[in-house]
This record gives sequence, C-alpha cells and structure tokens, in this order.
Amino acid sequence: MKLATLKDGTRDGRLIVVKRDLSAFVPATAVAPTLQAALDQWDVLEPRLRALAEELESGRVRGEPLDVRALHSPLPRAYEWVDGSAYLNHVVLVRKARNAEPPATLKTDPLVYQGGSGTFLAPTQDLVLPDESWGLDFESEVAVILGDVPPGTQAKDAGRYVKLVMLCNDVTLRNLIPAELAKGFGFFQGKPSTAFSPIAITPDELGAAWKDGRVHLRLRSTLNGQVVGDTDAGPEMHFSFFDLIQHIARTRPFTAGTILGSGTVSNEDRSRGISCLAERRMIETIEQGAPRTPFMKVGDRIDIEMFGPDGTSLFGRISQKVVAG
Amino acid sequence: MKLATLKDGTRDGRLIVVKRDLSAFVPATAVAPTLQAALDQWDVLEPRLRALAEELESGRVRGEPLDVRALHSPLPRAYEWVDGSAYLNHVVLVRKARNAEPPATLKTDPLVYQGGSGTFLAPTQDLVLPDESWGLDFESEVAVILGDVPPGTQAKDAGRYVKLVMLCNDVTLRNLIPAELAKGFGFFQGKPSTAFSPIAITPDELGAAWKDGRVHLRLRSTLNGQVVGDTDAGPEMHFSFFDLIQHIARTRPFTAGTILGSGTVSNEDRSRGISCLAERRMIETIEQGAPRTPFMKVGDRIDIEMFGPDGTSLFGRISQKVVAG
Repeated sequence: MKLATLKDGTRDGRLIVVKRDLSAFVPATAVAPTLQAALDQWDVLEPRLRALAEELESGRVRGEPLDVRALHSPLPRAYEWVDGSAYLNHVVLVRKARNAEPPATLKTDPLVYQGGSGTFLAPTQDLVLPDESWGLDFESEVAVILGDVPPGTQAKDAGRYVKLVMLCNDVTLRNLIPAELAKGFGFFQGKPSTAFSPIAITPDELGAAWKDGRVHLRLRSTLNGQVVGDTDAGPEMHFSFFDLIQHIARTRPFTAGTILGSGTVSNEDRSRGISCLAERRMIETIEQGAPRTPFMKVGDRIDIEMFGPDGTSLFGRISQKVVAG
Repeated sequence: MKLATLKDGTRDGRLIVVKRDLSAFVPATAVAPTLQAALDQWDVLEPRLRALAEELESGRVRGEPLDVRALHSPLPRAYEWVDGSAYLNHVVLVRKARNAEPPATLKTDPLVYQGGSGTFLAPTQDLVLPDESWGLDFESEVAVILGDVPPGTQAKDAGRYVKLVMLCNDVTLRNLIPAELAKGFGFFQGKPSTAFSPIAITPDELGAAWKDGRVHLRLRSTLNGQVVGDTDAGPEMHFSFFDLIQHIARTRPFTAGTILGSGTVSNEDRSRGISCLAERRMIETIEQGAPRTPFMKVGDRIDIEMFGPDGTSLFGRISQKVVAG
C-alpha cells in the first residue's frame, strides 16, 4: 500500500491512497482525515486503507491523476523525528572532514540524534538559504514511520512497529555544525527542516528488498541533473532499523507517527558515489589534498529517488531547488 | 487564563479552562477539542477561551471541581520540545560534575537540546525506573508554549510568540549521559519522557513577574517532603526565553505548540538550594570531597511548584514517585 498527503491549506493536509505506479490516487478521507490520524488507530484503519488501495490497483476505481507537486511530506509535522547514522562509512568520512575521530563505540553503540519535527518541507519545496556560507548539504536517507513502540523493545521484536517506509533529505548546514558540537549538546541550528519523499509505502511493497530491517535497494542522488550517488542502502547499514528501534526505546516509549531515519546512505565502494557533499569533499581532500566541490549554492537542485527491480519509482522523487532567503 | 488537559482515554486528552485558584474547571470542547487544536488557531480561539475563563472566574458558571490527578500534561504529546540551559550556574556546576569544561561561548551562545516530544508524562505520573544505576535525577524548570515562529525571528520581536507558560520536570538519567555525549550527537537515552505542570497559563497571569522574557518568581522543589530548592527563576536566567527563541529560529521556523524550556533553574546563592540532584552532588564534592546525596531511588517523590505573590499555586504541582520498572 502506498500513502501520501495532499496539500489542502491545513497544517496536516489530507490523506490519500496512491496507485502502485504513482499515476493516480483516491482520497482516504472516509477512513482517516490525515496520515497521523491513520497511524493513531493503525490496527483498525490499515485494513480499510488497504481495501481502498486494492480498489484502485484493480481498476474498479479509477482515481484522480497524481501530481507530485501537490503533495506535502507524508507527515507534514510529526511528534518525533529521530535520525540514526547507521552507515559507518559515512560516520568515518564526515568525522574525518571535521578532524574528529569516530566514536570508540562506532560498531557497537548506534549514533542517533533527535531532530526537529514540527516543520517538515514538502518533497518539492525550495530549500531557502539565507547565507551560502552556512554550507548547505543534502543527505539522502531511508526512513521509517513507527507505530507505538513500548520502552525496552528488543531488535528481534521491532519489525512489527515499522508501519511505513520513506526516503528523506536530511538537510544539513555543515559549517554551523562544528561550533554546535563543540558545545556538547548535539546538533540544532545545523539541522534545518527536513524533507521526505512524496510517498510512504508499507514494507511489503518492497518485497524481498525489505530484509532484516534494511532496504536492499539503491538510492539515487542527482545533483543538477547529474547522478552523484547510486548507493546501496542494504548491507552496509551496520545497525538495522530494528537495532535502531532497540536503541532509541531503551529508556522511553515512542508514539505512533515517530519517524526514524537511517542516516546518510554510504558505501565503501567509491564508484557508487555519494549521498551528501561532505563525503565527496572528504574524498577529494584524501585524494587531492583539498575539497574541490562547493556546498550547495542558490540555483542548485537535488533529486533523491529509489527504484524497484522493475524500474518503477517506489516513493516518488524528492526534488528541491536552493533559493536565496 | 489557565488551561489544562483532562485525561479521557484519547492520545491528546480534552481541553479545559481552569479557574485561577485551581478549584474548578469548565470543558472547552465547544471551542477546541484539544490544546493543540486551540494553538493551531490561537488568534481566533483565544478570545473564546478567555470568555469561558471569565464566566468561570466571575461565578456566572460554577464549573466542576478540579482533581489534578485527572490531568495529563497540557500537551500530552507535542511537535517539538526544545530545552535550553539558560542558568549558567547550572551549566558550570553540572559540567564540573562530569569533569568537563563549560563551553567557551557560555555567555554569548545559548545551549539548547532537542528533546523527545511524543510521550510526555502526566504531572502526577510515576517515574518508572528499570535500573537505579542509571542515576535518575529531576530537573525543575520553567517552560513556554510557542505559537508559529518564523525563521530569523529576533529576540526583540519574540514576546508575541509566547502563548503559555508551564513548569516542567526534565527527567534525566545522569549516568547514561557521559557516554552519550562522548559520541558527539547530544543526549538521547539520558533523557526519558518529560513531565509538565498540570496547568498552562497565559503570561498575563504572571503580572509583573513576567518581564523581559523571564519569570521572576521562585520555583520550589520538594524531595520526599523536604524543600530542597526555592530558586529564583528570574535574574539568573542569562538567556531569556526571547533570546532562546532567536537562537532556535535562526535556521528554521517552529510550529504552534512547540515547547521551549529554560533549563534547570539555578542560583549562585547556595542558600536557595537546588533544582536537581546533580548540583547538590557537585557542591558536596567541592565542599566535602565527594558526593553524599544519591540519585533518586524507588519510592522517592519529587514535587515541583511555583507560587504567586499571594501564595496561590500558579501551575498546580508536579508530583511524581519513582517506581521500579
């Protein structure tokens, strides 16, 4: 099942069910007005949403044509947005770029940060940049939307809490981060509003590619029309989403609608490219002595998309242009 | 005007208007079902809520008797919970306790962290502690609920965005924090669910005590029936709520219902006592060579309350008992 949120002038938009090939949709208003409302009663409402999806897929209902520009993030605002950093190659490269060591517990203790969740960007919304010296970067990631997670949940039981899968652009202001981290409280100003893919899908839509709490497919990042990354989101996700759920739920519960991110998808094989510019800059530093690629500038565009084995776009495309603030 | 949220079995509870002396309430359902719904349309709905409050205050409506145990946190879940650390005495003492230096920008750049906002505790809800070695601590704070804050908001314009004031217990697991901070991404497991005061009040209820973005009143912390802190929340709040708003809004907007905390209220004058046990333990270390006060244990109770000049409890009392997990 594929879900999305139509912009309608309200804060939370209107829930729709989207056809597998993203060509059409039907309103889900009769089942739940918003995605959050659906998640709040998922066990009861999911079968009814699936019935709508089945009607659309079978052609019994034709639906309306889908225009991705009319969509907001599946959850325009959420109660929590927790982002991991589960691809160790990314952690090592980005820390090196800041002249920082990777944490001693790199392979045993997941890194996560609590992100701002009140003002997400629509998937085609401009990235407003008041100051290019802030060092705007994209980060292409996979994210999941959780149901109610009890405290103390173990990884082996965590699969049942993954309700939906999305992509995200965890927008980062690289040059604000070192001073923030020096204060010891983590990121804040360095992480402006995040964008998510137009469509959120149930894990079964991924078929065999959803395995062990990881999405075993390639994530394509395209900068100004040029593919800069076609990274495999699967095997190198050192901590799976299930591991991350166990980590975040150690000392508290999570409410339905919590979003959990994978961190920047990153592969050791450099031919796969990058899912953020900080990595490319670090590789340039290692190979050529200094970074050559600038961070994003006004006018740049980043597209993020993932395709199924048959070439269909699974989540629709995040496509954001940088504009002056 | 004083507002609260009645537990009714739903995730967000039911909005009520509370009499100034906290003796009675009237349902606000006809105006807005929940506090978040009221905040979403505050400009339109605030006058209607104030009309209800006026009827209750004048005696034209008698209302129902208020039982604080029937209340949830004013927002049982919120879209963001951002906590500052604006009392420098606290920052200095707690860092000393971790053998860490205060940040170089202590007096010029506010410290804030992004907290989890999906599963707040009710003001009289037990603190479930699965493991006493985690080092459970309370932190008594003042917090405000914001309206929609545009990015780039300046401190001088920030007053208009403060809609409501509350107290909070920013529950902390002290012994989990050093290892988390060593990883460089800020707090996560060390900050379990936060509790807020039963009542949220509009700033005008504070009269002259609401000045320059600070609450100039004493905050009383009572541990196991003994007053351990009667700290002044006013002058030593180095960064006001207005300063904190300017800081957090530098690179993104905030949605209505965002909660912003002051950080642990702390005074240099030691006769005022403490608003968290970490401070007392550090003072003991300085004065006696080692901490003597343990962190909270199963059976302990923490009460947090603030009184107006006439002795009335402004926000009702946070009263939480530690129970085994």
